[in-house]
Amino acid sequence: MSWLAGYGNSAEDDNDNLGVDWVLQYEFGDIDQAQAITEFRTLINDLSEAGLRVQVRHGHGQALLVCIRVPRDHLGNLVHQSRIKDWLFGITHTLPDGDETVIADADTPSEEIRSVYHAVTWQKKIGGAGITPGFGKWENVTASFPLHDQDACAEMLRQWNRKTVLTASDLDAIRALFGEKVAFYYAFIHCYSLFLVVPAGLGILGWLYLGPYSIVYGTALCAWCIVFVEYWKVREADLSQRWDVKGVGRLKVNRKQYVWEKEVKDPISGQVKHVFPGWKQFIRQLLLVPFASVASVALGALIVASFASEVFISEVYDGPFKGYLEFVPTVLFSLSLPAITSFLTGIATRLTEYENYRTQDQYDLAQTQKSFVMNFITSFLPTILTAFVYVPFGKQIIPRLDFLRRTGIMAELVSGQKEFEVDTNRFQQEVIYLSMTAQVLSFGEEVVLPYLKHVLRQKWQNYQHRKQEYSRKRKYSTAADLFMVDPPDEAAFMTRLRSEAGAEEYHVEEDIMEMCVQFGYLALFGVAWPLVPLGFLLNNWLELRGDFFKLTLECQRPPPIRSDSIGPCLLGLDFLAWLGTLSTAAIVHVYRGPISEVRLSSLLLTLFVAEQVYLGMRFTASTALEKIFSDTIRRVEASEYAVRKNYLTASLARNSSPSSGSQGSPNGRTRHRVRFNERVNVYGTNEKDPSSDEAPSPTKQEPGNDVLRGSDREAQFWSARSGDMADAGVKLIRALSTSKAGNEAKSPKEA
Amino acid sequence: MSWLAGYGNSAEDDNDNLGVDWVLQYEFGDIDQAQAITEFRTLINDLSEAGLRVQVRHGHGQALLVCIRVPRDHLGNLVHQSRIKDWLFGITHTLPDGDETVIADADTPSEEIRSVYHAVTWQKKIGGAGITPGFGKWENVTASFPLHDQDACAEMLRQWNRKTVLTASDLDAIRALFGEKVAFYYAFIHCYSLFLVVPAGLGILGWLYLGPYSIVYGTALCAWCIVFVEYWKVREADLSQRWDVKGVGRLKVNRKQYVWEKEVKDPISGQVKHVFPGWKQFIRQLLLVPFASVASVALGALIVASFASEVFISEVYDGPFKGYLEFVPTVLFSLSLPAITSFLTGIATRLTEYENYRTQDQYDLAQTQKSFVMNFITSFLPTILTAFVYVPFGKQIIPRLDFLRRTGIMAELVSGQKEFEVDTNRFQQEVIYLSMTAQVLSFGEEVVLPYLKHVLRQKWQNYQHRKQEYSRKRKYSTAADLFMVDPPDEAAFMTRLRSEAGAEEYHVEEDIMEMCVQFGYLALFGVAWPLVPLGFLLNNWLELRGDFFKLTLECQRPPPIRSDSIGPCLLGLDFLAWLGTLSTAAIVHVYRGPISEVRLSSLLLTLFVAEQVYLGMRFTASTALEKIFSDTIRRVEASEYAVRKNYLTASLARNSSPSSGSQGSPNGRTRHRVRFNERVNVYGTNEKDPSSDEAPSPTKQEPGNDVLRGSDREAQFWSARSGDMADAGVKLIRALSTSKAGNEAKSPKEA
Repeated sequence: MSWLAGYGNSAEDDNDNLGVDWVLQYEFGDIDQAQAITEFRTLINDLSEAGLRVQVRHGHGQALLVCIRVPRDHLGNLVHQSRIKDWLFGITHTLPDGDETVIADADTPSEEIRSVYHAVTWQKKIGGAGITPGFGKWENVTASFPLHDQDACAEMLRQWNRKTVLTASDLDAIRALFGEKVAFYYAFIHCYSLFLVVPAGLGILGWLYLGPYSIVYGTALCAWCIVFVEYWKVREADLSQRWDVKGVGRLKVNRKQYVWEKEVKDPISGQVKHVFPGWKQFIRQLLLVPFASVASVALGALIVASFASEVFISEVYDGPFKGYLEFVPTVLFSLSLPAITSFLTGIATRLTEYENYRTQDQYDLAQTQKSFVMNFITSFLPTILTAFVYVPFGKQIIPRLDFLRRTGIMAELVSGQKEFEVDTNRFQQEVIYLSMTAQVLSFGEEVVLPYLKHVLRQKWQNYQHRKQEYSRKRKYSTAADLFMVDPPDEAAFMTRLRSEAGAEEYHVEEDIMEMCVQFGYLALFGVAWPLVPLGFLLNNWLELRGDFFKLTLECQRPPPIRSDSIGPCLLGLDFLAWLGTLSTAAIVHVYRGPISEVRLSSLLLTLFVAEQVYLGMRFTASTALEKIFSDTIRRVEASEYAVRKNYLTASLARNSSPSSGSQGSPNGRTRHRVRFNERVNVYGTNEKDPSSDEAPSPTKQEPGNDVLRGSDREAQFWSARSGDMADAGVKLIRALSTSKAGNEAKSPKEA
Repeated sequence: MSWLAGYGNSAEDDNDNLGVDWVLQYEFGDIDQAQAITEFRTLINDLSEAGLRVQVRHGHGQALLVCIRVPRDHLGNLVHQSRIKDWLFGITHTLPDGDETVIADADTPSEEIRSVYHAVTWQKKIGGAGITPGFGKWENVTASFPLHDQDACAEMLRQWNRKTVLTASDLDAIRALFGEKVAFYYAFIHCYSLFLVVPAGLGILGWLYLGPYSIVYGTALCAWCIVFVEYWKVREADLSQRWDVKGVGRLKVNRKQYVWEKEVKDPISGQVKHVFPGWKQFIRQLLLVPFASVASVALGALIVASFASEVFISEVYDGPFKGYLEFVPTVLFSLSLPAITSFLTGIATRLTEYENYRTQDQYDLAQTQKSFVMNFITSFLPTILTAFVYVPFGKQIIPRLDFLRRTGIMAELVSGQKEFEVDTNRFQQEVIYLSMTAQVLSFGEEVVLPYLKHVLRQKWQNYQHRKQEYSRKRKYSTAADLFMVDPPDEAAFMTRLRSEAGAEEYHVEEDIMEMCVQFGYLALFGVAWPLVPLGFLLNNWLELRGDFFKLTLECQRPPPIRSDSIGPCLLGLDFLAWLGTLSTAAIVHVYRGPISEVRLSSLLLTLFVAEQVYLGMRFTASTALEKIFSDTIRRVEASEYAVRKNYLTASLARNSSPSSGSQGSPNGRTRHRVRFNERVNVYGTNEKDPSSDEAPSPTKQEPGNDVLRGSDREAQFWSARSGDMADAGVKLIRALSTSKAGNEAKSPKEA
């Protein structure tokens, strides 16, 4: 494939990263030289203090590139420390052997790079260099990234092109290169695409035999959506288990921006925690409601206005320039959308900032939630308007838009007196457009265009660079050359380095969101055209590869952040499956027959029933899947059990060895005990200090000695008939049987 | 209070349990003497083999009572073993000190009795005596229970009577005496009653100012229901944490009746597990659907028939004996209900048996689910019929019931030609009856009646016993006396023992279910009469004490089983809160105005909106409560962290001590590693065996030695400009600033 050229055209050596673990880009174009020099000295100083080796090269324009290398023994120890931390927080179940000074080999490149990332970005007091790009005093550090492993990426893409579906080991490979957060996205799109095969197949059948708006197909589609979402939850748990990242959120470090209210020293573990009360955060989160309302109104008004004017021009207006005017609303909409979206995103960011999250993860999650709301409105509202407003009520509404004619202004322009007729196919056409053309367009917009842009900009900058170099060569001494001119054997590497420094950051959330929106189209409108899932399936085949291409060739390598889920989009999927059920029911109900015959009460009944079916189906699906895939849970339990078992064996061995002086005697810890057959207050059982006046009785029983306590009567009871109890019982059985028989025999006599 | 008499009338000594840990009752009335003797010998033999001491006494009638005592050192060790098992399965976070032979003191009586319970009932291969009452070869063991601790119970009831609300330490005391499963019920009724204060207060206001069917009160009630259910989930998690029972279900032993399909040896932990596939169980569980349908039809038909005939007689019929006939349907219904219920319970039991659960817990859970379905129908259907069928449609339906008059038969009996008029107050009257009279009646039926029955039967049996003893004294030798006659100082104790052996078993599920049903009445019909919650609140004050009275004086002491939840009723609460929202919305809609003016479409709209409000409210409530009560989660994490931290410290100390020969060297375990800057296949990273042909390169880097690997170029890159990097950067900044300035200065010249 021609777009693989990016990998092929460089010599083998150029793919070598020369041992560079991390790169920072420092730009000083906007500040004066003295400040730049001070800042840069601090930067290098901080990095060196954290034990990192650095090399400096010049970047494109007024920028320096700082190549960072963590000495291998330091890195190995960081990896080991990080593993110990994982174990302490219960993420993994095997404690790494050895003491604090062990130097461990990382299992995967991403584990190694994560430690490098921590070494560069963590605050100084927890052992990092404290470089936070774009924040605080490091505002001029404009990029912070590890270098791509070109060979591995090329190999992976080559492998993918030979197969249709990814395997578990492909996902593991992504995880090894880019970390779990990215790997979860690929696992999701992969799982989703495989699931799509079912509705795609059903869709072909439905297209051939049922046609659009089929009840059977709609029901199947809704059921599929629900089952998919529930299955993905199980799958996610399974993967987080496989990749040892379950609950990884809790060990994340505090964001630098986090403001806590009090420091709490945990009474049990002794950790100092910075606490911001949950209820306060929740109240702040409630601001999401006004935000969502404002966003809905702003975006909704824009969409409605452009929709209305488009409809007006295409359906009612009949004057000159109609052919051109038809595009005006869409163009205006497209032009104003970015401004409004960026304004709303600004508000969203400030809100999220205000909500004050402890970790970057939680912050990202909250931010994604808000962008989900905006995305939801811009993506779905236009089609919802078409489906539920324009087509059913168009006949009543559209003529009112025709104010031009009604008010008599421009009456001469608006000719034609024909009765307005709503195009009922418009909804289906929109759905077809969404599932085919829009997907291809968005792929081009997302992958191809940025790539071309990136390549062209790099070429331009390299050209500039060469020109400057040429002019510089004539101007400066050879001493300055040493800094300003790349040595010939570094040249190719430096070109790549500069190219990567100038690339975009990769945001996996955007890709996940895109898939969510696609799922939403399917759930909400899929019933209108049975081939929608087939279109999506084909698109996703390309999307998967395109996204990987984007990740490896267009963007900076993302820091290999860990995560145990696809994040808040999961909630979005739940929401879309629910809304999809209602929407599908409504579409089928409205569009099956003539729209004029639809009655509100029967539509409401349909919706009400659909909602109950949804609730029932979701409950059944989650119960069933949980039951069927209980292996995952069993595996977790088994591994936890194994850890404890090993510890127990080790601790028993330790106790039995004679050198265990430091461990204290096994029975050293006395517990306050509620005795069961003496008169004791059972209240206060769980209290730690036994300082009640009901102290344990002084006649404390020695273990291993079954002396009967209490009264003589007790001793008497247990020593009575000290012979064989079986014999005693047998005698009793005989006696009781006889006495009964005797009584029965006697009774008639006495009577 | 007079019903405290049960505690007061016995001398102090009689409350002593004489060291009896457990009692079995063996009845041989139905089998011949030889078989009884063989069985009894086996019984005693099995108990002795398990290391238990026994004493035999005769019971009421043809029964023997086997008193069991576990020697204290054996018991202490059992307690210790049980704690180790808890820790192994992750229930508790502190491993008890010492090796396998340690003898531990139990913290609470229930912990001790639980170990006794295990010693008696567990299968032989896991160290018990294998006595399973009423099952298999122990079919004639008809009772198996520990003795009540009379003093502690009396003390507790006395304390309760002095206070209005229970405290956390009261709940701890219940847990200490009766185990967690029972304690969870008391925690639930306590939490529920406290929550009831809010709607009770609102109800009084509503009663004074709003009247029935108020929208405001209805909304508040629904919100309250949802918040309560969500809060209880949090509270439950909190309590299971406090009582160290979280996830206790997984360490439960297999039921004897459990049939597994295969034995799986876990690859990680080495445990052998008996597996029955989850999907098979799920398919079997689907039989719940036909069962629920059959139960609904059977019970529903019965209810509808009795309802219809009652309405017919009271509203239409006007012939002779009307006063008596009115009671006939209710009497017939009450007479046939037990038969149908017991028939359905029989089916339910067989279904649950067939579903093949591994543990007794899961079995009980499934059984409770089914009885919830039956309870739901019998409790709510009559009122639902009144609210949504009789009152709204009565005018159309009831006259058709009047077949007597229409067919002309008995026309002379059915006199009166008046137009039929539905009594719209009937629904409210029913709700008032349910919340006041029915609660009091059920209390009497549940607590007072059985107590009287139990006391009277004991008195009768004691009378019988004395009569027999008297007749026996004259007949038998003194040798037989030794067995048949209680020694005078044992007499009172034996009377109590026999009384407890004859008492009912206590089923906490029934009490929980009763509270669920009450919650259901409130959620479904509470809006019809604002004083309902007040009635329930008063009732629950009594109910709580009555149930405790029943537990301690009427029933056998239950084995102190552990559990981390109130079980399937939680799902029931969720369901009732949901149905309650719909029902409240419908009631308010239908009953607010004249019923004849209600239109279907507006009713459906109300329901639809109510359902969305329900979903939104539940989501908000669960999110908010989770956030606000995140302390619980933090506590768990902290304690787990502490365990690991301690272990780490210990293990580090062990490694640094010279006697750690058995632990292996810290770096002994080599991991297969994916090297990051050599050409490696990233596939197969996670595989355990490094037998791929891409073996680790022979030039494996020694840790602690930062030799640069790879090409010379790499070494060159990092050793280039080996001076101070800060200086290098400063030179670059100067050079770049100058070159840019130079360029800019030059550009105009060149142009």
